[in-house]
Amino acid sequence: MNMQPKTKTLLQKENNFSEWYNEILKRAEILDVRYPVKGVYVWYPYGYKLRNLIYTILRSLMDKEHKETLFPLLIPKEELMKEREHIKGFEEEVFWVTKGGSTELDIPLALRPTSETAIYPVFKVWIRSHRDLPLRIYQIVNTFRYETRHTRPLIRLREITSFKEAHTAHADRADAEEQVKKAVALYKKFFDELAIPYVITKRPEWDKFPGAEYSIAFDTLMPDGKTMQIATIHLLGESFARTFDIQYEDKDGSLKYVNQTCYGISERCIAAVISVHGDDHGLMLPPEVAPIQVVIVPIIYSSKGKNAEGEESGVKEVEKVCLAVYEKLKKAGIRAFFDNSVDRPGAKYYRWEMKGVPLRIEVGPRDVRDNRCECVRRDDFSRMRVPLSEVVSKVKGTLNEIHDCIAKRAKEIFFANIYKTEGYEAGKGEEEMKELSTKAAHGIVSIFLCGSQRCGQEVEEHLGVSVLGEAIYDDGNENREGGKSEGKCMICSRKAKRVYVARAY
Amino acid sequence: MNMQPKTKTLLQKENNFSEWYNEILKRAEILDVRYPVKGVYVWYPYGYKLRNLIYTILRSLMDKEHKETLFPLLIPKEELMKEREHIKGFEEEVFWVTKGGSTELDIPLALRPTSETAIYPVFKVWIRSHRDLPLRIYQIVNTFRYETRHTRPLIRLREITSFKEAHTAHADRADAEEQVKKAVALYKKFFDELAIPYVITKRPEWDKFPGAEYSIAFDTLMPDGKTMQIATIHLLGESFARTFDIQYEDKDGSLKYVNQTCYGISERCIAAVISVHGDDHGLMLPPEVAPIQVVIVPIIYSSKGKNAEGEESGVKEVEKVCLAVYEKLKKAGIRAFFDNSVDRPGAKYYRWEMKGVPLRIEVGPRDVRDNRCECVRRDDFSRMRVPLSEVVSKVKGTLNEIHDCIAKRAKEIFFANIYKTEGYEAGKGEEEMKELSTKAAHGIVSIFLCGSQRCGQEVEEHLGVSVLGEAIYDDGNENREGGKSEGKCMICSRKAKRVYVARAY
Repeated sequence: MNMQPKTKTLLQKENNFSEWYNEILKRAEILDVRYPVKGVYVWYPYGYKLRNLIYTILRSLMDKEHKETLFPLLIPKEELMKEREHIKGFEEEVFWVTKGGSTELDIPLALRPTSETAIYPVFKVWIRSHRDLPLRIYQIVNTFRYETRHTRPLIRLREITSFKEAHTAHADRADAEEQVKKAVALYKKFFDELAIPYVITKRPEWDKFPGAEYSIAFDTLMPDGKTMQIATIHLLGESFARTFDIQYEDKDGSLKYVNQTCYGISERCIAAVISVHGDDHGLMLPPEVAPIQVVIVPIIYSSKGKNAEGEESGVKEVEKVCLAVYEKLKKAGIRAFFDNSVDRPGAKYYRWEMKGVPLRIEVGPRDVRDNRCECVRRDDFSRMRVPLSEVVSKVKGTLNEIHDCIAKRAKEIFFANIYKTEGYEAGKGEEEMKELSTKAAHGIVSIFLCGSQRCGQEVEEHLGVSVLGEAIYDDGNENREGGKSEGKCMICSRKAKRVYVARAY
Repeated sequence: MNMQPKTKTLLQKENNFSEWYNEILKRAEILDVRYPVKGVYVWYPYGYKLRNLIYTILRSLMDKEHKETLFPLLIPKEELMKEREHIKGFEEEVFWVTKGGSTELDIPLALRPTSETAIYPVFKVWIRSHRDLPLRIYQIVNTFRYETRHTRPLIRLREITSFKEAHTAHADRADAEEQVKKAVALYKKFFDELAIPYVITKRPEWDKFPGAEYSIAFDTLMPDGKTMQIATIHLLGESFARTFDIQYEDKDGSLKYVNQTCYGISERCIAAVISVHGDDHGLMLPPEVAPIQVVIVPIIYSSKGKNAEGEESGVKEVEKVCLAVYEKLKKAGIRAFFDNSVDRPGAKYYRWEMKGVPLRIEVGPRDVRDNRCECVRRDDFSRMRVPLSEVVSKVKGTLNEIHDCIAKRAKEIFFANIYKTEGYEAGKGEEEMKELSTKAAHGIVSIFLCGSQRCGQEVEEHLGVSVLGEAIYDDGNENREGGKSEGKCMICSRKAKRVYVARAY
């Protein structure tokens, strides 16, 4: 049963995603953009609760094998400058603290753009022996980028408020590579819990993390047809270990460099939840991360044209039932809210739909009489009558169903927008190039590329896209896409692998 | 029963607190001081877990009436400079970001020393009507001070990593003053849960928060006889509201300035837990905040001089029982750890005593035979035998007892070091002044002072102390101290109130 409410649809996600995104951040009270510094924003309480719930999932996944720590924000210039490749990637993006009070500092201090150069000098003293390995730590911190491009809340920031960065050190490369696989599995689990679909790719050589041997990234698809990088995982090998002299004594007494990895997720994961699941009514939150999972709305009519006495007793009865339902749900560990404000029911529907509350329970005088309530799902607006005696089990079951439906829908849209060129070969002409370009405007295009920077750049220019990288298939992708995994490079005809390209954030 | 173990006592809290403090931060793995920037430190995983547990208590107390938010770190110079009194208090302590990449910034950005000037311009847009009041928010953030004095981990920092600051806005002064009282009650609860004793005082005029009407502070007593400020609460009145133009429309349609308060707690609360409770064996953590509440140590002897076969089966049995105890405790929600490492039991005792684990459970072959284990308390090293069938209930009960004993001992020491001068009056001579000075070297001295800056400073100079402020009695203090609450100023003989003075951090 689909009973779409008649409230005016005010947002238009499909037609103007950018405006939709900004409006929803404001109306759902996620972030306030009215702060007088470019690229930094204020978290509303509701948004911060969403943030905390999402990061609670991330933390619990990390805590299984990593230990949480905290390193300083300020990095001395000389430490930051030690790793040549690394600093080349960041030097134009670093904020510098140069003064304390009215005193010029002897050594300028960088606000961490990422923490390799803050952490690894300490790894050097923490790691002595093979018994100290593997070492796996993480922290959730604010990091800073002097972003000169157009900034965007949660997506392109000068202060990233919630950067979860993990850093690991291993006895050898095999163990480090194993860790990369574990990190991929961990991030898959995380995004699956958020019902966010993704492709996983090995970034091309020219787009890897500065200082890394290779980088693996998760990208999701935004409603405007562009991809957004939502997680990265880097095999650092020995490069930082050699720069920061991180050695351990092996079992045989010899000194060896550690082999390292690092991987991170920022508040872009929140931007993804908002953008992928939301609709023209507002946010649509997976129940696990919804600050309010169930809102209870009493349906009480105005006193006009009613028997005042009868109505009064009806109001009390309705409120009593609402409160009883609230208490039951709360006791069962469900985040419920009883909206007993003076607003009209329609205004309440609008507010809580905007805020993405997965389930609404309505209780009116007739429901009280019949010992039931009505449940309305946020994802499809379907209604069902539930006997009060079954409310907890029904709510629990429905919240699970909502998660599955949200996840299913997101996956369907995502995979419908991956265009696979099966037999695409060199020299097939301008027309097909145009077709690919059109497709790349709405989603991800999967082509064959040899991996050389020359061919990559030619495709980037011709199609107006970025090369995300060589596809790393997880089961989901494999099943959906099928087809050949090797072919000929569409530019040079040499042997090539499947590569995703798209317009990227 | 007190069975102090024979391991060598390595730390000396009483004789050299400063060294004890530094050693314990290192040996218990709280903070690593080997970071190449003055006044900033690295949290070890164990320390950070302690930090998180302490802040979980703080958060849950805050969440009852406050909403968590997050405001930016960077504050534009002009905003920071708006409140004249406020900036006078901070301008020599502010770190300035002046460059992004190689570009000089148009407007220098301050790293927040505290967030009034970041938050209140946003309060201006958040608060429209009396219905928006009271507004109560808090955030837990890193803040920065360009500290030129001697820095100290957790106590005097350039990066305060864990500043919990609350900011509230109210319709009128009465409601704001009520909030001050609520904040005092909330902080009392917090420090009571940490078993940290305190005095509460109204700071003298010349020592209040810059921009506040008055400031209330919590001070505890450190083992070296100095007091440490561990919490502050400020009535801001309308001063910031007028500067940042924060007005609301009252019920009658008139525009009024809000009345504000703010209050904060930093990681000094962790320094207090470490310093007040620790002993020469290391940390002693109240069970609520101990990262490990119970450590289980198998007592297995080396194979020398033993029947190899019998011993082997004994080892397995012991480990099996340890694991069963571990699982039982874990299931009951107790943070247990089974130390199955190859180290000798003595080394394990040393390590976990150093880390402040409240309770140790030992299991040897004889215990297995008798279906029991031995529990050793960290606070008094007393032992008791516990039947395995009762282990969960006994552990729970003992952890509660340990909290109470730790709290009782801390209070006793604290109040034994508050020296009250009952009838002290003007002109009693140099000798008694000397006596007070000696007493102030070991604790808090309670005297009568009129409240004028002149008399306050005279006392400060004569006794080599700071005036903490006028005593605000809670039940604990009242009962312990008793005596007159009003008298004559020891300097000028005018009417005076009870005032605490001490050497302060």
